[in-house]
This record gives sequence, structure tokens and C-alpha cells, in this order.
Amino acid sequence: MEEDARKSFSLAELAGRFGGTVIGDAAVRIRQVAPLESAGPEELSFLTNRKYQKLLATTRAAAVLLSEDSADAARLPRIICKNPYATYARVAALINPDVRPAAGIHARATVDAQARVAVSASVGPGAVIEKGAEIGDSVVIGANCFVGEGARIGAHTRLHPNVTIYHDCVLGERVILHSGVVIGADGFGMAMDDGRWLKIPQIGRVLIGDDVEVGASTTIDRGALDDTVIEEGVKLDNQIQIGHNCHIGAHTAIAGCTGIAGSTKIGKYCMLGGNAMISGHLTIADRVVISGGTLVAKSITEPGTYTAVFPMQPHREWLKNAALVRHLHELMERVRRLEDEVKKLGRG
Amino acid sequence: MEEDARKSFSLAELAGRFGGTVIGDAAVRIRQVAPLESAGPEELSFLTNRKYQKLLATTRAAAVLLSEDSADAARLPRIICKNPYATYARVAALINPDVRPAAGIHARATVDAQARVAVSASVGPGAVIEKGAEIGDSVVIGANCFVGEGARIGAHTRLHPNVTIYHDCVLGERVILHSGVVIGADGFGMAMDDGRWLKIPQIGRVLIGDDVEVGASTTIDRGALDDTVIEEGVKLDNQIQIGHNCHIGAHTAIAGCTGIAGSTKIGKYCMLGGNAMISGHLTIADRVVISGGTLVAKSITEPGTYTAVFPMQPHREWLKNAALVRHLHELMERVRRLEDEVKKLGRG
Amino acid sequence: MEEDARKSFSLAELAGRFGGTVIGDAAVRIRQVAPLESAGPEELSFLTNRKYQKLLATTRAAAVLLSEDSADAARLPRIICKNPYATYARVAALINPDVRPAAGIHARATVDAQARVAVSASVGPGAVIEKGAEIGDSVVIGANCFVGEGARIGAHTRLHPNVTIYHDCVLGERVILHSGVVIGADGFGMAMDDGRWLKIPQIGRVLIGDDVEVGASTTIDRGALDDTVIEEGVKLDNQIQIGHNCHIGAHTAIAGCTGIAGSTKIGKYCMLGGNAMISGHLTIADRVVISGGTLVAKSITEPGTYTAVFPMQPHREWLKNAALVRHLHELMERVRRLEDEVKKLGRG
Repeated sequence: MEEDARKSFSLAELAGRFGGTVIGDAAVRIRQVAPLESAGPEELSFLTNRKYQKLLATTRAAAVLLSEDSADAARLPRIICKNPYATYARVAALINPDVRPAAGIHARATVDAQARVAVSASVGPGAVIEKGAEIGDSVVIGANCFVGEGARIGAHTRLHPNVTIYHDCVLGERVILHSGVVIGADGFGMAMDDGRWLKIPQIGRVLIGDDVEVGASTTIDRGALDDTVIEEGVKLDNQIQIGHNCHIGAHTAIAGCTGIAGSTKIGKYCMLGGNAMISGHLTIADRVVISGGTLVAKSITEPGTYTAVFPMQPHREWLKNAALVRHLHELMERVRRLEDEVKKLGRG
Repeated sequence: MEEDARKSFSLAELAGRFGGTVIGDAAVRIRQVAPLESAGPEELSFLTNRKYQKLLATTRAAAVLLSEDSADAARLPRIICKNPYATYARVAALINPDVRPAAGIHARATVDAQARVAVSASVGPGAVIEKGAEIGDSVVIGANCFVGEGARIGAHTRLHPNVTIYHDCVLGERVILHSGVVIGADGFGMAMDDGRWLKIPQIGRVLIGDDVEVGASTTIDRGALDDTVIEEGVKLDNQIQIGHNCHIGAHTAIAGCTGIAGSTKIGKYCMLGGNAMISGHLTIADRVVISGGTLVAKSITEPGTYTAVFPMQPHREWLKNAALVRHLHELMERVRRLEDEVKKLGRG
Repeated sequence: MEEDARKSFSLAELAGRFGGTVIGDAAVRIRQVAPLESAGPEELSFLTNRKYQKLLATTRAAAVLLSEDSADAARLPRIICKNPYATYARVAALINPDVRPAAGIHARATVDAQARVAVSASVGPGAVIEKGAEIGDSVVIGANCFVGEGARIGAHTRLHPNVTIYHDCVLGERVILHSGVVIGADGFGMAMDDGRWLKIPQIGRVLIGDDVEVGASTTIDRGALDDTVIEEGVKLDNQIQIGHNCHIGAHTAIAGCTGIAGSTKIGKYCMLGGNAMISGHLTIADRVVISGGTLVAKSITEPGTYTAVFPMQPHREWLKNAALVRHLHELMERVRRLEDEVKKLGRG
């Protein structure tokens, strides 16, 4: 990054663009965003968690974003706004704009004569685009990506290098796919027949809505008969596996390493913690929160937070308790017998 | 997909090819398979689960596949067969044949002069095939795949784009590897020596039998000294990790996100649920079923289903119970003391 | 592998190079290393676990590496050394040297005119190296890898095929990245604003120290503001996910399928079992061992082994015990009541 080339903005300009009230010197200029601990003289910081409030006293930041109820928590120049974290996101995006490669098809990309690529799109070296694929305006297809026959990619979508899109899948606009992502591989479908697995053709597609982001090495399988659907605004972290015929509701966010088995429907605005596992053929309501590491084996009909995690202990203590978990049934029997005996004694 | 180009088949033809008895109009023509809910007038559906039986009354399907004991559950034209799900798989494959690229080496593939590629094989753009590799009849090597030195790939096997095969690995016939698969990376082997890890060379191979399918981004490490072996007919879902020197028995099916640590031997016809984890150096008997999310830390000698999952609860209830799990040992002590006291009281 | 081309070494030579005392015929020549069970007449084996000691009686190995306290456990020629496993690693590396491709940029690699590639480096077909990237001495960039703008790769580092390095990331010397690895994708950062997620630009980098090895399809995200740091000597297995701004201490080893959420700091010399999950914003002390499958939701300040795994049982038994876990709180209440009643009875 070339520091000098980066534009600077005054607090007044930032508040003008993104909303908020400046307290202190509105002419202070900002070149970058930074955490309170490490921010320097031309940097803007932010406070979103009260627990870091004491850092406001010592930070070297030029200015800070604060919410209305923390407006007086700092003396340095500040912008008071409704949602400092969101404003920080906007300022960071303004100062660090997405750098996109120039439009055009690299001489070493392989684009089928029957594919349609917008003039404003960029196709990197080694990328392969098959027959009938459609690449929209200002799309970026990174180096060594593969876009299969008949796939359609909406405007402003970006595929980082080494992404694979199987045939006939459809991506919306402003989608971001990170490296290693695989969209539309065959779902895990087979029938046992006379001691051998028969493959069930996977003839559905994957449909991805607008403004979806998919983290590195996440895989989303195509549907068996119907389509797998990821609605708009869904955010998927790295190394997530989404089985065939799943349906993920709009604006749901899923943390890394989570698996969702086939035909499960997740609601809108859900949040799934890392390394969760959702069994197949379930329905999860809107606004459900699943804790990291939780296995969900039943449908969930009510919003709320759900958890299924064995609590961590030093191994020696765990050994004792885990052994007892395996014999809880017997412990329960002993308590029942005690209750009977105590009842008898009480009567006696 | 061009609907019109797809051939149609009469029920009589389908029953003739795949077995079964037609009830109703055997001349009804089928162009596609579909679920009961969404099937239309030229589509064949199927019933494999009694719980969907009521859909038979309302489906718009042209015909349906039923088992013998459900033969009278529908009035529409139907094929009665032993295993409707398997017959559905066969019909679906007939109607939706695997489309394979034409034979030949793409001008932008890089094939070493000392590699042997069958004339009937297809090698896509950007694929790299190193010295001494052997690519069998009708094999498809997708775009941007890598096949390392001395690797051998059996007839009719298909590598989707962006698959990596390290040197000397051996794949059987009719194997399917989905995008992102990595076969033969180094196993996780090292020795601690004076505060530093020494890498242990991984000089074994990966041997994959006939008719194996491997899902997107699954990784199978090469053996440290001996080989890692995946027997014929094994089906692996996406994002599975198989450590060095593992041996997976024939026709075992493993769901996504599962990890199998080094040197573990899994039997034949096992089924492992998603996000399971099998520790290293274990032996799992034939026909074992492991529930999703289960960590297996001991060998299993008997067929059956095994589970290790903390049950899910609303977070607030979980908090209370999880806290108690950490103190089960003390609860057990309290029950013991009660038993002693009640005994004394009984005597007294 | 061409057996004949491999050099052979006498026990005397091996002990001379790597330390240790030869007992028996020091002229015995070794061409390969092998496990005790399968070793043949020109092969060296080793014993690191007493439980395999009986194999010493029947092995056909030419010689064996033993520790001082097992010096007399075998009659065959042997090298007695402090750390037989480490010596085995060294002998294996001597006999099976890393084969590296010849220096030079393949005609089908795409290297930007403003990238710097050492003359001794090797860049494979299909690899893409962007503007300002620096590739050090003797580095190997495998086929179809991507090295983004401004990334720096230290001497002797090897990228196997299909690795992706995003812009500005920095790799040390002698680093090994296996296929499918993605370094520097955007971290999972977003702010909720009026019902939509706003992306937070991820402007940090990934810094990887010397002698780090990263397994197939592991992903390490770039920092949000500061950098994600992997210190020297860290060993990562396959399919691990490391979130933005994590810091992994030197010589820590992490087994496959493990996830580490953002901003967590892991100490030095830690060992994390497979499929573990570490929540975000935690601090884990040096020399902590986390059992496989364990979810860590709190910081750990003391060295030791920590576990959080529901014990496995046959499914039918699990059903009974899992149901009781969900009602532990009620069981505890019943025990409390019993204690009260017994107390009263005792008084009465």
C-alpha cells in the first residue's frame, strides 16, 4: 500500500457523507482507520464496546467515532453517530476502495466463442469460461477461475483467483467469492442397490442472490432435482459446506467450518457460530442464533439462541465427569430409589 | 438444459430396462424426474418415504415409482419395483446422461512429453500433466487440474476443474473427483527435536479404488511410509479430511466436514455422519454407523450406531445444565452420601 | 520412485551424520526406511512406542533405531540414539530428498513485468505472479498458483500447485504450502446497518514466519486492520480455518479441520487436536494441549490438557443419557430435596 497516494478526508467531510455530529476540530484530516491501541496522528478509531473505553484516554488517534451515549467519553475530536461500527465500515471503504483489475479478457484466459462477456468485465489469466456462460457488467473473474457452461454471473460480482462455478449456476450482483470456493458440485446423493451405491444425477442448480459474500474454500452443492438457494445478503465465512437443496434465508450470517446437510431451510437473519452442524431436512426459523460447535438435529421454530456444547475442563476433571455422563441413567435410577426409600422412611 | 433435446421414454420402456411392473397406461411418456410436489405432466416421481404418501393424491406427475407394498397408494400410472429409489437413480441417469467434453488435449493444457494420455481422454485448458503420468481411456481432466509425476488415472475417471493429484498417486476406473479435491498432499508427520519440529518425509501414496466419488474440497493425504487406501465404491462428501495411512473399506459413505486422523482403518459399508471426527490409529468394524458430530476416540469392534453429541437446548437452559455437567462428580458424591445416610436411617 | 537410483548408506555413515552408537554390523547398508511389520532386508526401521516392541523379534528390517533404554530389545543391527523418531525423520529425509523442479519461469506462467523473481526460483505452468510481488531464492511456485500484488515469498519456500496468496501477504523462508491453501482472503467482518450487512474492508495482511508448513486446503484470513500472524515453526494440518487477526505462537501444531475464530491469540508450543474450535478474542497460554473435537469458549491461562467432548456410546444408551443431560438441573433439584428430607429425618 502506498500511504502517500491515499486521499485524506476531514472530519467535517466524513460527517457530511455518512451522518453524525462533529465535536472538536472538524478540520482534522484522516488518512486511515485503526484500532485505538495502534492508531496514529492521521488515523480515525472507533469504540463499539464499552470494555475498551479506557483506551480513549491514551489513544494517539486523530479522532474517534462514538455513539450518542458515549459522546463525552473522550476529549479528542470525534464524530458522534448512531452506529459507529457501521460508520467505521463506510469510512474504511472510502479510504480503502476495492482495487479492481482493468476491464478486458487476458490473452491467457480461455473464453468460449459462445460465452458472453461484458466489455466492462475483467477476465484474468488462466481463467476458463465455457459455452453459453454470461458474465455481466464490471464483473471480475480472477486468475485460473472456471465458469462452466451456461453459468450466469451478475454485474459487479467478483471471483477471486481459483474459484470454480459448475455449469448452469446463477450468481446475482455484487457477489464476492473468495479463492477456493466451489459452487455447484454434485450433491451427496446415492441409492444403495445390491451392495453398491448408485449415483443419483444432480440436475438442480445453485442460485445465489445479490450482495452475497462467500469465504475461502466454502462449497455449495447443486440441487438434486430442485435448486440450492442462497438468498440476498447472506454472508458465509470460510470452509463452510452447504448441501444440495438447502435454502439459506436473506441476510443470514454463518461462521467458518459450519456444515449444513441437504434439504435444510435456514431462515432470514440467522447467525450460525463456527463449526456448527445442521442436520438435513430441517427447518430453522428466522432470527435463530446457533452457538459455535452446536449440532442441530431438530427443526427450530422459535427465534432465540440455541446451544449444544460439552463444557470444557482440564482433561483430568473431564475424564471423571465424562465417565459419569455415560452412566447418568444409573445415577437417575439411584436418585429414584433414594426418593422411594426416603418416602418410606418419612412414613415409617 | 435444452428441454426439447431431451429424449422421452414410455413407462413400458423404463420397466423393460430397469425392471418393475407397470400399472395403468404404459404408453405414458417421461421426459424428466421430479419430486412429487413439483412434478409436471411429463415427469416421473417416486415415493421412498411413507411420510410423503399423501402427496400421491395431489401430485401432477405423469407417473410414479412405487414399492410393492405401496402399489395401491396411488391411482396414477405407476411402475411397481423392488427399490424405487434405485430405479429413480437409474431413470434419472438415463434421462440426464453425464455430458463429457470431447476427446483431445486442449491447446492450453501442458502435458509432459513423457506422460501417456489415452487418445480417448479429454484434457482441459490450463491442466498440467507431469512426466510419467498415465491418463486412461475416456478420462476427463478438467480445466486447471494438476496431475503430478508418475500418477496413474484409470479409465472413465473424471476430474472436475481445479483438482490436484500429487505425484505417484493411483486412481481406479470411473472415479469422480469434484473441484478443489487434493489427493496426496503430505500427511501431518513430524518429530519434535530440541524445540523444533522436524518434517518426516511422506513417501507413501494414495490408492483410490474403482467407482469412488470424492466431493468438493475433500483432501486425502499420502501415506508416511505405506499407502493411504480408499477401497472401491467409497463415497466421500465435501470438505472431508483423510489423514495419512488411513484405510477406508469398500462402499463406506462419509458425509461432509468429517475428519479421519492418521492410520485409522474404517470397515466396509460404514456410514459416517457429517462433521464426525475419528481419532488416529483406530479400527472401526464393518457396517458401523457414526452419528453426525460424533467424536470417536476408541476403536469400535461391533456393528451398530454410535453417538456422542451434547443435546441442543435453548441457551439459557443449556447454561444451567452445562454448568452441572462440570460438577457431575460432585453430584455423584452427594448421591453416595445420601445413600449412606438413608441406609443408616433405615437401620436406625 | 526408482528404487535403484536411490543411494544407500551404511549404519556407520548414518550414525556419523546424525549421532548415535551402532550395535552390530555397522557396514549394513540402508536404502529406505519402513515400519517394523513391512520392512525388508535393505530397510531401516524404528521403535518409538513400547507397545510395538514385540515386532522387533519378527521384523525383517536390516536394522533398527532404538532409544537408550530399549538398546537391548533387539538383536539385529541397530543405532542407539536419544530420539529415534527424530533420527528416523532425518534418515528418511536423507534417503528421500525433496525433489524440486528446475529453476526458471515456465513459458506458460504469467509474471508481471514489475514482479521480482529470483533466478534460482521455479515458477510452474499456469502460475500467475502480479505486480510488485517478490519471489526469493530457490522458491518453487507450483502450477496454477496465484501470487497477488506486492506479496513477498522468502527463500526456499514451496507452493504446491493451486495455492492462492492474496496481495501484500508475506511468507518467510522454507515455508511449505500444500495445494488448495488460501492465504489472505478477507476476514469475516461486517457491521449490521438497517437490516443489511456492510462489509468492513480487510486491510491487514497475513505474515507467515520461517519453517511453517500449511496443509491442503487450509485457509488463513488477512487482518481487518492489523495483521494475522503465524510465527515461525508453526505446523498446520489440512482444512484448518484461521480467522482474521489471529496470532499463532511459534512451534504450535494444529491438527486438521480445526477452526480458530478472529482475533484469538494462541501461545507457543501448543497442540490442538483435530476438529477443535477456538472462539474469537481469546488468549491461550503457551504449551496448552486442546483435545480433538473440543470447543474452547474461554481464554486459558495455564499450560495443561483441556477437553470438551461428549463421550461416545451405542446410540440407544446415548439417547437415554442425552435426555437426562437436558434435565440435569431437575435431577440436581431432586438431590437437593432429598438432602433436605434426609436431614429432617436424621433430626426427627
